[in-house]
Amino acid sequence: MLHPPSTIAAIASPAGTGAIAIVRMSGNNSLGIADKILALPQNKTLKGQKTYTLHYGKILCHGRVLDEVVAAVFCAPHSYTGEDMVEIYCHGSVYIQQQILQTLIDNGAAMAQPGEFTMRAFLNKKIDLPQAEAVEALIASQTAEMHRIAMQQMRGGYSAQLKALREELLNFVSLVELELDFAEENVEFADRREMQELIGRITAVVEGLAGSFAEGSAIKQGTPVAIAGKPNAGKSTLFNALLNDECALVSPIAGTTRDAIDGTITIGGVLFRLIDTAGLRTPADHLEQMGIERSRQKIGQARIVLWLADCGDAADAIASDVLQFADEITSRSGKIILLLNKIDLMPDVSVKDKIKALQTLTGRGIEVISVSGKYGSGLQTLQECLVQMATQSRSEGYIVSNARHYQALVQCRHSLVCVRDALNGGLGGELIAFEARKAIDCISGIVGDITDADVLNNIFSRFCIGK
Amino acid sequence: MLHPPSTIAAIASPAGTGAIAIVRMSGNNSLGIADKILALPQNKTLKGQKTYTLHYGKILCHGRVLDEVVAAVFCAPHSYTGEDMVEIYCHGSVYIQQQILQTLIDNGAAMAQPGEFTMRAFLNKKIDLPQAEAVEALIASQTAEMHRIAMQQMRGGYSAQLKALREELLNFVSLVELELDFAEENVEFADRREMQELIGRITAVVEGLAGSFAEGSAIKQGTPVAIAGKPNAGKSTLFNALLNDECALVSPIAGTTRDAIDGTITIGGVLFRLIDTAGLRTPADHLEQMGIERSRQKIGQARIVLWLADCGDAADAIASDVLQFADEITSRSGKIILLLNKIDLMPDVSVKDKIKALQTLTGRGIEVISVSGKYGSGLQTLQECLVQMATQSRSEGYIVSNARHYQALVQCRHSLVCVRDALNGGLGGELIAFEARKAIDCISGIVGDITDADVLNNIFSRFCIGK
Repeated sequence: MLHPPSTIAAIASPAGTGAIAIVRMSGNNSLGIADKILALPQNKTLKGQKTYTLHYGKILCHGRVLDEVVAAVFCAPHSYTGEDMVEIYCHGSVYIQQQILQTLIDNGAAMAQPGEFTMRAFLNKKIDLPQAEAVEALIASQTAEMHRIAMQQMRGGYSAQLKALREELLNFVSLVELELDFAEENVEFADRREMQELIGRITAVVEGLAGSFAEGSAIKQGTPVAIAGKPNAGKSTLFNALLNDECALVSPIAGTTRDAIDGTITIGGVLFRLIDTAGLRTPADHLEQMGIERSRQKIGQARIVLWLADCGDAADAIASDVLQFADEITSRSGKIILLLNKIDLMPDVSVKDKIKALQTLTGRGIEVISVSGKYGSGLQTLQECLVQMATQSRSEGYIVSNARHYQALVQCRHSLVCVRDALNGGLGGELIAFEARKAIDCISGIVGDITDADVLNNIFSRFCIGK
Repeated sequence: MLHPPSTIAAIASPAGTGAIAIVRMSGNNSLGIADKILALPQNKTLKGQKTYTLHYGKILCHGRVLDEVVAAVFCAPHSYTGEDMVEIYCHGSVYIQQQILQTLIDNGAAMAQPGEFTMRAFLNKKIDLPQAEAVEALIASQTAEMHRIAMQQMRGGYSAQLKALREELLNFVSLVELELDFAEENVEFADRREMQELIGRITAVVEGLAGSFAEGSAIKQGTPVAIAGKPNAGKSTLFNALLNDECALVSPIAGTTRDAIDGTITIGGVLFRLIDTAGLRTPADHLEQMGIERSRQKIGQARIVLWLADCGDAADAIASDVLQFADEITSRSGKIILLLNKIDLMPDVSVKDKIKALQTLTGRGIEVISVSGKYGSGLQTLQECLVQMATQSRSEGYIVSNARHYQALVQCRHSLVCVRDALNGGLGGELIAFEARKAIDCISGIVGDITDADVLNNIFSRFCIGK
């Protein structure tokens, strides 16, 4: 049963305490259940009220007034889900939110599953599947970049293009399948050269979209930036300074940081995931060793590594450290910035000399920036450099950030390669049609011609509760 | 200017990401500003719509569609603030919330100060001051206990009683002041014995309320419970088990915990603030010493101390540790529970014997509970014991949890003592009237006859933004 006729309820506002919170219900019985717990003036009931109206009332719970609220009535089919809906705007205490939800459930509502409101909207044909997924992406958007991708998808995004290409491919496959009915006569309804050309076009689009996923991920999760270096280079101080927070424990003792600590920050509309790591040295004890191993892993996943060096150290020692390290980073197309820290302890002239020396010594375009994590100088230059590095490869076109779409694109590409090989090898229509159908199914999976309950449940289970 | 005629805007839902968020506006120009950024179907505007109605529309920002929303219209005076109000229900992404707020501000709204909506409700006489303060307490309520206190205050609470007593006192003071006009004739209009009796009654009420503040604080902030003991007794494991979380770093190495970590948990409707502390021993290094000093401070502030002992240790060693410690705790009316941990490593019979031995050795009603932090056994008994200890002194009457009220009560009590002493000493009416007026002012401060802008700003600045 994909679409039980039950009435569902959930807290829809962000988790936690605020001025106002929202508890929402959807289903045939929404108004009836709300009327059981809500006392309106003059013995009014929500049932019988006009759609898109608001009503002041008191929530009663075990004979006591739990809260004074405003309730909204949305009548089917003109609601988000297409069903009757009630939204209750209450005082935003966590206790009150939970008690109202509990009281609704005690009176016959079912606890909504994650994404169940949006799934109902999809099943009632208020929105299609990529739009439903865009709702989730929109809610998760923390930056201008994430918002742009989600809005693209909400407005149709790459669905239209994929749907059109699927239609063209479907035409060819139908012709190839028709040939199979006339197998003895050895006819060719589908022009093989035109089909080759079409497969080439589809492959280019699919590859382009699949290729954008790395970028989509970085936009969605934040570009991972690791802060690495020797112990006591001031990594945690820089980490805290960039995050404007006291996340990491700081002490003058080398090896204070044991855990690899994460923090996200938005700079110029771009999301970054900063990772503070333990200093790389021969570990003093087992706990530190665990920390250093974790650091190496995290550095391995970063797209940008900030190698932090103490500007008091000799230039050739710093250069040798960073060069040794740079090979490892750049081999997996990561980027590296050499940060000369603690410049507050050194005259400006010496700092400039050291930067010049390092640029000569490292000599292959490694960015060198001087900073003071302690006093914040140089941080703006660093931030600008981070934004520039993170966005220099951004495409202006459609970007895939949905993992399900990416997976389908990769499978589609695989099937397209098989079709192409079969066409090139002059293989039989049976094999061509089989692989082309697989490619078509992959595209259908993205654009939303899905009715399988498990697949749908899986998609909507990633949503937040209340949406 | 207490009440600027500007239109204010703020995010009113809890901070963070959720299905739906709320941005609200209040002021004469609310509808006009909303109409500038909101595109409704058929070129409708919010201006001209009926009060308590909802409208679907698109938020436009720099020519792009930022979000699809529902907007609510509340017309003055039938709104929370008594002014025209608009609430926008948008997709709950942090980015979208901030962009909508920013767009409203770009179009002429002012950023609301904390509590400014409620302050306007107070200034427009929609609610009185203790009720306004109850709104804040209601929003902050996390437990049934906190909710009960806030609702008491919302319904009038101790205001009525204090107001009545103030009236009685005012009568007497007026009579005493009248005597001063007839100073040469040496008359006594105010019966000194009756006045003594009244001062006694007021003092009893004021003392009762002031005395309830310790309880009110514990209800509001959580009863502080420190987990203390020698290193490696399993404090962090117990802490995590009680919180059902992996807050604290756990390792088999003694002295892993450096920071004193806090976590709150609600058990049976009662809020507790658990504090994990570093093990008490001679510190191995400077960092550990800092941790131990912080632990001692935290333990000193706790109302209940869980002294955790390894059940593998000898009973007399455990008893001597806990007794040495118990004096310090009970001297400041704290309570102590001796927890025998790691019982999973010992046969049941031996555990029972050890408990018996410890009860004899400690011998003054120290509660002994056997637990396994690792496997969770005994935790329910511990939780029940915590709830019982925290609530055994709870009063059924009014409880003061507002620090401003408490401060006024303490000042009032001081003035009442002065009045009583003046009456007892047969001192002149001038002094009696002077001190009694001070007591009256203190009560007025609580019940809300305040017009001073600074005082009001100070009260409302503690509210959350958006309320």
